[in-house]
Order: sequence, then C-alpha cells, then structure tokens
Amino acid sequence: MKTKEYQLNLDFFDNKQEDTQKTIFSLANGHFGVEAINPINESINYGTNVNGYFDTGEITYGEKAFGYASEHQTIVNIPSLRTIYIQSLNGTTFDKSMLKERTLDMKTGILTEKFVLENSSGETIQMEVTSFVGQSLKNWYGIEYSFAAGTYVDDIYITKNIIFNRDIKQVETDDPRKQSLVQKVTVIGEQEQDSYSCVIKTQNTNLSLPILLKSADEINLSNYKVSLKKMSKVGYIFGIGDIQENVKNPFLQIPNLDEIKADSISFWKNTWENSALSIDDSPKLNKASLYNMFQLFQSAGRDGKTSLSAKGLSGTGYEGHYFWDTEMYGIPYFAHTSPGIARNLLIYRFNCLDQSRKRASELGVDKGALFAWRTINGLEASAYYPAGTAQYHIDADIAFAVDYYYKATKDNEFIEKYGMELILETARFWKGFGDYNTVDGQRQFEFHTVTGPDEYTALVDNNYYTNRMAKYNLSLVKKYADILKKNNSNKTKELKLTDEEIIDLDQTVKDVYLPYNTDKGIYAQDDSFLQKPVWPFDKTPKENYPLLLHYHPLTIYRYQVAKQADTLLAEYLFAGETPVDQLEREYDYYDKVTTHDSSLSKSIYGIIAARLNRTDETYNAFKDSVLMDLENSHGNTDDGLHVANLAGSWLSIVAGFAGMSLCDDYLSFEYHLPKQFSKLKFRMLYLNNLLEISLSQNSITISLIKGTGFKTKISDTIYELNSENKKITQVVTK
Amino acid sequence: MKTKEYQLNLDFFDNKQEDTQKTIFSLANGHFGVEAINPINESINYGTNVNGYFDTGEITYGEKAFGYASEHQTIVNIPSLRTIYIQSLNGTTFDKSMLKERTLDMKTGILTEKFVLENSSGETIQMEVTSFVGQSLKNWYGIEYSFAAGTYVDDIYITKNIIFNRDIKQVETDDPRKQSLVQKVTVIGEQEQDSYSCVIKTQNTNLSLPILLKSADEINLSNYKVSLKKMSKVGYIFGIGDIQENVKNPFLQIPNLDEIKADSISFWKNTWENSALSIDDSPKLNKASLYNMFQLFQSAGRDGKTSLSAKGLSGTGYEGHYFWDTEMYGIPYFAHTSPGIARNLLIYRFNCLDQSRKRASELGVDKGALFAWRTINGLEASAYYPAGTAQYHIDADIAFAVDYYYKATKDNEFIEKYGMELILETARFWKGFGDYNTVDGQRQFEFHTVTGPDEYTALVDNNYYTNRMAKYNLSLVKKYADILKKNNSNKTKELKLTDEEIIDLDQTVKDVYLPYNTDKGIYAQDDSFLQKPVWPFDKTPKENYPLLLHYHPLTIYRYQVAKQADTLLAEYLFAGETPVDQLEREYDYYDKVTTHDSSLSKSIYGIIAARLNRTDETYNAFKDSVLMDLENSHGNTDDGLHVANLAGSWLSIVAGFAGMSLCDDYLSFEYHLPKQFSKLKFRMLYLNNLLEISLSQNSITISLIKGTGFKTKISDTIYELNSENKKITQVVTK
Repeated sequence: MKTKEYQLNLDFFDNKQEDTQKTIFSLANGHFGVEAINPINESINYGTNVNGYFDTGEITYGEKAFGYASEHQTIVNIPSLRTIYIQSLNGTTFDKSMLKERTLDMKTGILTEKFVLENSSGETIQMEVTSFVGQSLKNWYGIEYSFAAGTYVDDIYITKNIIFNRDIKQVETDDPRKQSLVQKVTVIGEQEQDSYSCVIKTQNTNLSLPILLKSADEINLSNYKVSLKKMSKVGYIFGIGDIQENVKNPFLQIPNLDEIKADSISFWKNTWENSALSIDDSPKLNKASLYNMFQLFQSAGRDGKTSLSAKGLSGTGYEGHYFWDTEMYGIPYFAHTSPGIARNLLIYRFNCLDQSRKRASELGVDKGALFAWRTINGLEASAYYPAGTAQYHIDADIAFAVDYYYKATKDNEFIEKYGMELILETARFWKGFGDYNTVDGQRQFEFHTVTGPDEYTALVDNNYYTNRMAKYNLSLVKKYADILKKNNSNKTKELKLTDEEIIDLDQTVKDVYLPYNTDKGIYAQDDSFLQKPVWPFDKTPKENYPLLLHYHPLTIYRYQVAKQADTLLAEYLFAGETPVDQLEREYDYYDKVTTHDSSLSKSIYGIIAARLNRTDETYNAFKDSVLMDLENSHGNTDDGLHVANLAGSWLSIVAGFAGMSLCDDYLSFEYHLPKQFSKLKFRMLYLNNLLEISLSQNSITISLIKGTGFKTKISDTIYELNSENKKITQVVTK
Repeated sequence: MKTKEYQLNLDFFDNKQEDTQKTIFSLANGHFGVEAINPINESINYGTNVNGYFDTGEITYGEKAFGYASEHQTIVNIPSLRTIYIQSLNGTTFDKSMLKERTLDMKTGILTEKFVLENSSGETIQMEVTSFVGQSLKNWYGIEYSFAAGTYVDDIYITKNIIFNRDIKQVETDDPRKQSLVQKVTVIGEQEQDSYSCVIKTQNTNLSLPILLKSADEINLSNYKVSLKKMSKVGYIFGIGDIQENVKNPFLQIPNLDEIKADSISFWKNTWENSALSIDDSPKLNKASLYNMFQLFQSAGRDGKTSLSAKGLSGTGYEGHYFWDTEMYGIPYFAHTSPGIARNLLIYRFNCLDQSRKRASELGVDKGALFAWRTINGLEASAYYPAGTAQYHIDADIAFAVDYYYKATKDNEFIEKYGMELILETARFWKGFGDYNTVDGQRQFEFHTVTGPDEYTALVDNNYYTNRMAKYNLSLVKKYADILKKNNSNKTKELKLTDEEIIDLDQTVKDVYLPYNTDKGIYAQDDSFLQKPVWPFDKTPKENYPLLLHYHPLTIYRYQVAKQADTLLAEYLFAGETPVDQLEREYDYYDKVTTHDSSLSKSIYGIIAARLNRTDETYNAFKDSVLMDLENSHGNTDDGLHVANLAGSWLSIVAGFAGMSLCDDYLSFEYHLPKQFSKLKFRMLYLNNLLEISLSQNSITISLIKGTGFKTKISDTIYELNSENKKITQVVTK
C-alpha cells in the first residue's frame, strides 16, 4: 500500500466549498457518522447522523388515497460533535475560521485539519483538529484540538458542549432528494465538570439514544483556560450509544483516546488487506477509488438492524432512508470485501418481512411480501408512489442480492435462517402480482403498472428490468429449495413450500414475458417506452438538468427519456445472456435517451461499455462515476454522498474492467481494461479466499493470496486455483 | 303543467336523513345557495355557498415536484341564513326540532317547512318556515317564520343573527371528493336594531363579500318577543352581495319579501315554459327529472365570472371547483333550455385563457392553452395530477362545448368574441402536445401519458376518448375559421391564425390515431387497457365500492377496470359514427369492466343502451341516474348534489329516449322510448325556436311552439318546421 494514495487532502479539490467538504470528509463506522462541520459554528444543529435513529411525522398529501404511506421517517439531526467555543481573555469570541489544511488518512481513518481562527478584533490563533471514530469500538468518537498563538498570544478559554433543540427551521423544497422533516427531540442530560451525559428521545418513535461527552484529560468542559505560550492540546471522547427502546447501561466501559485511535487504525489495516486496489497512471482516479471504498465501509450498518442509506452516514439527504441501492450496488461490493456486512444488510431486510407481508396485502396481493421502496423501519415512507411503491422491483433486487451473497460465500446457514424466506416471500409476491395474458396466441405472464429503475418513466406495463428480475426471483425458489434439500433442511416445510408450489413457480419463470422490439432488435424498456416521442434534447438548455427539477413529471413521463440505466442494468446483471450485437444496439439506443440525472447510471453504462470494449466510453463513464462526489458533479453532495455510485465505481473496475461476474460454481473474468490504464490491481474475497487480480494491457493474472482455493473462468477457460497452483495468468490477444 | 309533479315533499323519501335533505332541499340562484340546514342549530358554521367565493391555502405535498398546483382553492363556508334562536319566557331554549313537513314547490322556487320545536322542559311549539331566493334579484334571499303554540303557549323570544368564525374544525379525510380546507374570514359588521350588515373578507384571496340581514318588519333582531296566542309571523331579508375586490355600494336598493318571492315565481314560470317535461306512467321519475332540472337552473353561474361547480351551490364537496362536467354535461342542457347560461359558462372559460396559456407552458407546450382540471380562479388546483392535470381532455371538452353551443344557437357574436379563441388555443395545445409516431409504416399523431375520463386508469398512451376529442378539437379550427370568413370577420388575423396553420392543423386531424382492437372489434380505451387483467370482480365484496376508497391507486390502475364511461362517452358524443354492431360489442365489453363508481357514468351507458334499443338497460340506467341524489345512492349527497348527473339524467331522456343529436344544420332525432313508458313529452330550444317533443310507444311528434322554424331529421328523413308547418309526427315501426 502506497501511503500517499490513501491520503486525501485539499490539493485534490478545485472546489473547496464548505458544505460539500463537510460531506466528503465525514467519518463514520456504520453506526454513526460525523460530518466535517466547521468546528467554529456553535449554532449548527446537525452534523451527526446515527444509522436508523429516526423520528416519524405524518405525511400530508394534497389529496390522499387508500394505502398511501402514512408517515415520514426521518433520520434525526444531532448537533455536530466537532464544534468548540473559544474566547480570548477579553471575552471576544474566535468566531471566524479559515481552513488551511485537511487530510483524511484512509489507511488509518484519522482526519487532521488545521485552521486559523480570528476574533472580532482581528486577532488570530492556530488550531489543529484530529478526529477519528471507533470501528469495533463502534460507540466511540475522539477529537483533539491543539492551539498555538497567531497574532493573539494570550490565554484562551475553551468550552466544549453539545446543545440540542436550537431553533429548527423547516426548509421548503421542491427537490425530492432533500430531507423534508426536521424534528425536535427531548433531552435529559447530566452535566458534570468534565463530562456531559444525556439521553435524547424522539417524539413519535420513542427511541432513546444515550450520548456522552467526556474530557479526555478530566478538564472542565466550560471555560477551560488554555495557554498559548506552548502548543496546547485538549482531547474529548464522545459516546454514541445504541438505539434503545428503554435506556439501560448506556456506557459500560469508556475507552481512552488512544484506544479509539488504535481501533480505527487496526480496522482499516485489516479492511484494506482484503480490498486494496491500485490503478497505475492515474493517482487521482486511484485515490478517488480508494476514497469511495473507504466511505462505503464507513457507511454500511453492520448489526442486522440497520442498512446502508442512500447517503450513508455522511448527510441527511433522502432522510436517511434505505433503498434498493443497498442490494443492487452495495451487496456485491460487500460480498467481495466484507461479507459479514453483506450478510447483516440482508438480515436487516429479513427483519422487515412482517411489515412487507402486510404491505403486499395493502397493495392487493394476498401472498408474499412487498418491501418498502424507501424506509428505515420497514414501513413504506415514499410519499410519491409513482416513483416509490410502484418500483416493485425492489423485491426482486433483494432476492437477487441474497443469491449474490450466497454465490460469493456459500453461506448455507444464512440461506437456512434468512435467505430462503426472503426469496420465497418475494417470489410469492410476484406470482400474486402478475397475471397471465394471451398475446398473438402466446400465453405470457405479465406485470402491469409498474415503475422500473428509470424514474423518468412511470406506471408502465412490462418494464423489462422488472420482468427480468421477477423471472429470476421466481427461478430462485427451486434453486434454493434444492440446495436446502441437499443440506437436509426442514426449512421448506416450515415455510409451507410444497412441491406443487415449486413446480408452479418454476412454470411461471418460463412464462414471464420480456418485451423485445423486433424493428430495433433490442429489449424494450417497457411496452410503451419506444412508442413515445424522444425527449427534445436539442431544445433543452444545460441548466435544465436534472430534468426532475425543471419539468412537471407529466412532461417527463410522456417522452422517451430515461434518468438512468434501466434495461442496461438488467443486461449488466445477467452478463452474457444477451448477444453482443444486441447489447451494442441497446447501449447505443438507450444511451441517446438517458440523461444520467441519477447517480446510479454512469457506472452501469461504463460496465456495459467495457464489455463492448469501447475503451473511451468505459474510461469516461468510470471517471464520471469515480469522481462524482469528490468533484460534486451532481451539485448535491452537500446533502450526502451518492453511496450507490461509490459502489458503482468499484463495480466499474471489478465487473467492468476485469469483467468479473459470479457464477454458481466459479468466478468469471473477462478482460476489458481501457487503454488509458497500463496496470490495475485489486483484491477481493470469494468463498473465503482472498484473491488479487492484476490487469495489464496484455494480461490478466489471478492470484490466491489466502484460502484453500476456488474455480475461476477467464474468457472461456476454467482454471482451478489452490495451494499448489496459486496464480494464473492469461495473455490477452485483442 | 301539473302542479303536483312540481312539488317535492317528504313522502318522496325513504331516507329522511338530515344531512342528505339539507342538500336536496337547497335553494340557489347561480350566485349563491342556501342548504336546507335545520334552523334550530346555532352552532353551524356552514350552509351558505357563494359561487366563486373562495380562499386559497398552500397545498402540502408528501413529496413536491416542479409544476405541481401550488394552492388549494376552496369555497368559503358561510353560516346558514336559516338558523334562528328561540327561548321561552323562563329562558329555556327551544333547541330540539322535529321536521314534520317539507315541500319544495319547483314551480315557484318556494320551500315550506313545518317543525315542532321542543325546549329542555319538554314543552313544544310549532314553527313554519317559508324561504325563497331571488332570481333576477340575484342578491336576495327571504325567509319567514310563523310560530304557533304547542304544549307551550306563552310568549317566546326570538333572535335572528349570523355568527362567523365559530370554532372551525378541519376534518381529516382520505376521500378526495370532500372539501379539504376550512377557512377563516375576517368580518367587519355593523349591528343595528333591525339589521346587521357586514363585509366578510377572505384571508388570502382578499375577496370581499357584503352580507345584509334585515328584519322585514323593522323588528328587533335580538330577543324579539312573539306572542303565540295567535299564529305569529316574522320575516327576514338577506342580501348576499357581489364578490368584490373593494367594497363599494353593496346594496343600492333593498327589495321587500314580496318582491323577492314574486321574482322567484316569475323566473320559474318563464324557465319551465322553455323546458317543461313530463313522463307518463311514473310520477316518481317525472318528479325526479323535474327536480334535477330545477337544481341545474339553480346551480349554474350566470355572470361569466363563475361556472357550474361539481356540487352546484348545494354543498362544498370538491371544494366548489369547476370541472369538465360543466362542458360535457351542463352545456348541452343549458344550450337547449337557457342558452344565455350556456354562453356565460363558456365566457367564464374565456376569462381563464391567460392562466391556461401559462399552464400549457408549465406543462412543456409552448403554444396554446391548457385549462385547469379543477379550479375556481382558472389556476390548477388539483393536488393529484394523475387524476387531475393529466386529464388534458378538458381542453377538447371546452372546444366541444363551444361548438355545441354554436350549433344550438348560431350565436356568431359569441364565436367572434370568445369562441374562436377558445377553439384555437385548445387546438394549438393539442398540436404542441401530441407527436408523430410511425407504427407499422403508418405515420400517426399520438398523445402520450394522459388520463381519460375513467379515473381508474391513469397515465396511459392514446386514450381513445382523448384522441377522438382532440381530433375533433383540431378539426374545429378550419370550421370556425370558415364561418368567420363568411361573416367577414378579422378575428383570425387578430389571433395570428394563418392559412398555413389552418392547413397544418387540418392535416393533423387526419393523422390522429384512434386505438382499435381487431380481435375484439372495438375501440380500445387506450394502448394498454385491454392487455391488463380484468379486475377480480368476483372477489370484491359489495362494501369495497367505490374502489377508490378501498384500494391503492396502483392496485386499481393495474387492472382492467373503469370508474365510468370513457370510450362510450366518446361514442355518445359522436353519435352515429360507429357502426351499430361495433357499438354493441363496445357496450357489452366495457359495461363488464365498469363499476360506475363515478356519478357521471350511468347516464351515458343509458344513452348508448337506448341507441341500441336495449329497453330494460336503458330504463334501469335512467332510473339509477335520475334518482341518484334523491335516493342518495352514491352515499355522499351530503357533500352536495352530483350536478353532472343531474344533466345526465336529462340527456338520458333527450339524447337517449328521443335520440336527439345536434348536427350543423339540423336537429336530429331517433326514437328509443323504453317500453316502460307509454308517453313522454319535453320542451327544448333550438336556434331561438321553442320546440315540444312528444314520444309515445308508436310515434314521435315535434312541434314548433314559438319561433320562425328550423330543420329536423327524424330517423333518416329531414323535415322543415315553420309557421306554416308547425308539427311533424312520425310513426314508429319497431
């Protein structure tokens, strides 16, 4: 590991805008995240995001109807842990700050920042801030401040606190991607000289969260006098407890700053061991790739009770909700870098099955489960069903992810305890939701009035992605019933899955209709998409993107225009099923009508471009994807990172450049390294083996670093790697 | 005119439920309406509805997007003018009332009611209430109370007032048909001994409404002592001024009670003269038909600034909004019974053109005008666009109504001043909204992502009704340009309508695509309707209707199920264009998948059934339609009358039984009297002629009562009626 590649500092950025940087430099550990809020800003009432810590509020509709989601769920705004209040001897406050240096060391998880602070008299001092978050010590955060004289040389008074319930202003917004509900919490706190502990409680969900602030040096939290004669350091420890219904023993043991720091360092050492990645020729893209991975590890819930929200723990956009992103982008990433996280993300879904069964019935399907499109607690929280509940495909996405995780790990215990039920209940939903229709004498199973991944097209029939995924979902029942049988499991009986049902579902698999347009020789996004007029791109000024902020949904929906990969997303998932010439046509066709207004799009286009060996398009899509947040190219990184795309950029490398795909019994690779790179190397896990894949312009090498071995297919040849045969290289002929 | 037929009293009703009766016995005059609220109910803060007197309030969306309607518009609740406060000598209040008799005399517009009142000591008195509303004296309402002893025989004290801003409670509802916003008004009043005058003002729209309450006998409004020794009568006059931006001279002249009463009597005499109707064999259906007509006359705005709201002035359902009902149901009715009202209803639309041009542009169409789906002030107030703004067909409905009005009146001045611009701006919208598509080598003009009249199917492509109506709308440009040319008008130049545009629009007319299903031999409701599974009617319990209150829109939309006539509505409007065998198939097909959950449906099915000579279906649909409110068969007459259906029941007779349709140069009739009736007679206006049409089981007779004559076609023969030849009878052979 080259140290420099793992260090992100201000040099990286053209745009050093504070609101964007607070997101980018956020630290987290799956349980909570701390945005890199300017520490000299007492009035800020946000900046700490606790995974799954949310409140509810009634959704008001202009016009309400049966079965609408009834409550908003919104991640609670907890004030920043980073703020500090500093006064000079004469009482003037150092309330201006200028950031001079900022370095995130991704190899250790330690963030170091240097500020020059100024008071109203124009006097300055220097402040260095070091912060880090515990990883296995998941309830802990440490922050250290060092002060040195500037033009001001006398003593200063520092106060460290955490103030709740500052004036909360609701921001009106037309942008559905922002947080919509700001909540108040009740706080019961105990202030001591060198510590402050409290329990905050949400108003409606009644969830308690214990918080502790403690001086590391047993100094006064308020008005502590620091001499600037020599550089002076003070440290604080924050405890962010587990979310509880009743508070009990919030903090049994309080680690010291060194312990937290050491924990962070050791976590990242182990993590990178399994997932190191390097791209020659482009330090910038290399760093960006590592950054995206760093943030993914930070973002995902690890306890089976929480998941990976659309913005991770770096912001409150999308209200802290979990979407399908977790399964379709997050799970493949974690399955190959930290399978325990992937497992727990799926267990979170398992824990939502009851709510989802109820939801299926509310949507008129009396068997199976329908997962909420966006949620924290498992209940539907989408207040706009055409781009919410109508995205039924989330069910198949979850089943797909279960299957992916299993293929990557062969975790039979997981299938037994959680996976089979997830697959079966989602398959049952599809069976009840779809209907047979006879078209030109052909009896086919169809799905009506659905919205696919492309949110610029809503409420259509037979969305290709949805149908393809539902078909796969249905097919998984027999596959896993067979596996369970082989494992002598009783699970199918417990789930009341009979042979008749298996046969019936398996017949349905064959009958699911996939819309194909003969004229164009491509899969049709849905029954009507290709009949609509193409969006007038030539009349659309640049500033009118993303379209969703500048056009009425009715205007967007009536045109052939896609926000993101839809048909091509399915093509990516079912690699190799579609002939290359058709894939070429599909890429060319859909690319022309896709705005990529969704951050989930570019990486998928990049992967398909890679498979088509379109080297420039692959490279450009990858660049767009990997730099999306670091360059704030979507303009809303302020609200939080685009977490799905973080994983997308990794997939661009692994599934794109290296053409990795997961088969039932082996790991498959196809060589597609763009000509812009001379060498690329990454590590990944597969069936408990640690692999390293190296790509050069004329070869691909797979090495077994740890583990007992596995099968792999490169291009069309299958190899076996094991303790005897630890490395295989295939020379590429272009 | 038989007097009895024109009297509606309590005997008519099985269900005398007070909330329904208040709607049914409401009095109105197009300017304001007075619900028949129980007079002994001081705490009521509603009951008076002033046409177009509304306030606005921000629409809150669960998730907002560009171009959404921003403000609710809601008719203001004004307290009932009917309430009175009565005390016995010892101060106990007569606060219980039992309705004993109630008669609405539709020949005069006078409502008479008898109550027995009871105080808390169980003592009773009798009260008779007579009320009436001015018609040409449109700002006036009169009410008289007579008192007589019951078990209580002493003097009573009466107080008559009007109290604003009682505690207003917002009622939460999932039913989109109810009023959603309750508003407060400011009131500046002047109390004198025998009168109270005030101006109320809305909070957001800043609209002033002067109101006057005056004792007819110059007696004290408060605590006036009435002796019960002899029957004692007291009268009050209410003035409901015009809606003003600034109040000036609210009431120049105050009529007395007799003048108001006489005005009502003379209005109804003249009105029935032009529209009398009688059905032999069924006094009940005869009375119901007259009642529906009576309420239509009462409901429609007559000033060009207001229109005909979905509930008329009988209730606040649908917030007092104007919909397409006015044009598609109301205009044909008024065009043949009171053309001046039809004219003013269309002028109201003309006055909304500016807002509608702006709306078109918001919806991405840079030419023409798009009328608001529901509105009072011309701005879109629908908070659910899939069943609101997406019903673009309202544009064509308005153009159709302009054409209908012209065909019924040949009012060239109207076309010059208002009609041509309405037709052109709506046609321009369609041209900009639609797009050419090539299907199987055929270039066709299509309309995408629209909702037709059937609100159980939303956001579909090529809704037959919409396309058919848009096609007609487009065709009207050339028609009226030619008429204006013939009239030597400069209007087309003023509207910048060039010959090129006329030719272009006329070519588009030919290219508009109409979806037809070859297998079934019927017009398809839209591109996808017939491919969806049929709603599981056999699994739907009776109490689950209307579906909209019991199923998520997504569930409803994914099935083949219609709320109301959609394709068949177009078939009704374009009578004779579709071969009878196809019409048979369409009727049979669509009837099976239509719930008639919309009150607009039954009458249209009845008319088509009549044309198909299905006598029982015609009769049953007519019965359902004509009695809908009187029998409260939709269960929500409490919220107001179903005004479109009131007109629908008239159309059932005129366009159904008598098969009347309007051609460019003559009035056409087809004989379809159901066998359940032996004789039926009605009057109507056509080109300034007053006609009487009589149907018996073996003949149809058209008589010219007044006027210089006209051409008529009965079955396939054209006749001319004039001063020489005043009557034509055709014997029917079945």
